[in-house]
Amino acid sequence: MIDYNSLFKVSYGVYVVSSGNKEKASAYISNTVFQVTSSPAKFATSCNKNNFTSELIEKHQSFSVSVLHKDVDSKTFSRFGFKSGRDFDKFAGINMKYSDQGTPVVLDDSIAYLDFKVLEKHDMGTHWLFIGELLEAEVLGNKDPITYDYYQKIKKGKAPKNAPTYIDNEKLNSKTDSSDASVYECVVCGHIYDDGIEEIKFEELPDDWTCPTCGAEKDEFIKIKN
Amino acid sequence: MIDYNSLFKVSYGVYVVSSGNKEKASAYISNTVFQVTSSPAKFATSCNKNNFTSELIEKHQSFSVSVLHKDVDSKTFSRFGFKSGRDFDKFAGINMKYSDQGTPVVLDDSIAYLDFKVLEKHDMGTHWLFIGELLEAEVLGNKDPITYDYYQKIKKGKAPKNAPTYIDNEKLNSKTDSSDASVYECVVCGHIYDDGIEEIKFEELPDDWTCPTCGAEKDEFIKIKN
Repeated sequence: MIDYNSLFKVSYGVYVVSSGNKEKASAYISNTVFQVTSSPAKFATSCNKNNFTSELIEKHQSFSVSVLHKDVDSKTFSRFGFKSGRDFDKFAGINMKYSDQGTPVVLDDSIAYLDFKVLEKHDMGTHWLFIGELLEAEVLGNKDPITYDYYQKIKKGKAPKNAPTYIDNEKLNSKTDSSDASVYECVVCGHIYDDGIEEIKFEELPDDWTCPTCGAEKDEFIKIKN
Repeated sequence: MIDYNSLFKVSYGVYVVSSGNKEKASAYISNTVFQVTSSPAKFATSCNKNNFTSELIEKHQSFSVSVLHKDVDSKTFSRFGFKSGRDFDKFAGINMKYSDQGTPVVLDDSIAYLDFKVLEKHDMGTHWLFIGELLEAEVLGNKDPITYDYYQKIKKGKAPKNAPTYIDNEKLNSKTDSSDASVYECVVCGHIYDDGIEEIKFEELPDDWTCPTCGAEKDEFIKIKN
């Protein structure tokens, strides 16, 4: 038996993982960044194969990791977490730099960054597991790093469908399972709108209503139950 | 330039990773457990090749992960973290169970456990990176999971030398670098005793003095400076 609630007991940080160069750069929000050896300092990160940043990591064989702090602006999540870098320039207008090897690095809301060259990649099915050797690292501030737990509980953040830690609500035997109300899901970020819980039925929401998690338009929601 | 202090900004939980069977079991403390895909639920963990548990994972192609909570007894760290399962039975006298596939699972101080079959392993140099598919998981309690940050700051815990996140004090430009005092290191857990900081010189400590981190005897310390 698998109780998927147990997966919420596993701890992570929250990071912006970036790749590219001065011509084309992209980045996404990740919680799966971790050290695998100390000599030399090597890290692993799991990146959905559909992410545009994943393509850039493969092309440039490099990526940077910016460590977000607890007071991070929620716009940072919607900018990097729930939109594709194929469609717009995620680095436009933000505070950033290039590492010595030329990787774009996000500085906004970051207390440290680490820059890696890719040593290998392993096929995890839906994701690539990139293994990187640390080339450059700097501390940028003293605030506490944000944890994934804090992001979910305090910031009410969700895992996008592409995330390694995305959990289908159906699997959690949630409140929605036993009710007859309609349930809608944001196709951009996976936010669930459950008529059985909310005060206003989804169909009655105004047309300019947007997803409370990622800001997607109302018509980005699909009915997943009833 | 690498500022190794930036590595402390990366967040982890703290876990007991176990393997073996009813005849022989072992376990160690790990902070590097993380999900790599959601469909199916696959996790990765980095395990030092010298760990006895690592041998058992290779032999049995399975491992379990127990998620420790914040009030964890510090004896749990010394039992599982700083001694080898080759020398004594780490499971003697503790609250444990076997998963459906037969993996030993630590229940003491745990708020959840996850049980995996090994799908693949990747050579990280000093460590194996094991990739496991989730077969069984259960929530055991409601306390908050302990984070690695909390373990280091509040519990004053250290990374053993075998840990993926072990950082040599020399790399941190610590206080020891500029002093003329002798410095000693516990070979079991890496605890540093610096004559320039402590009130009593190491040589003057009584013979029955033990390492404050892991309880090792005084003669387990070696002089690493002067």
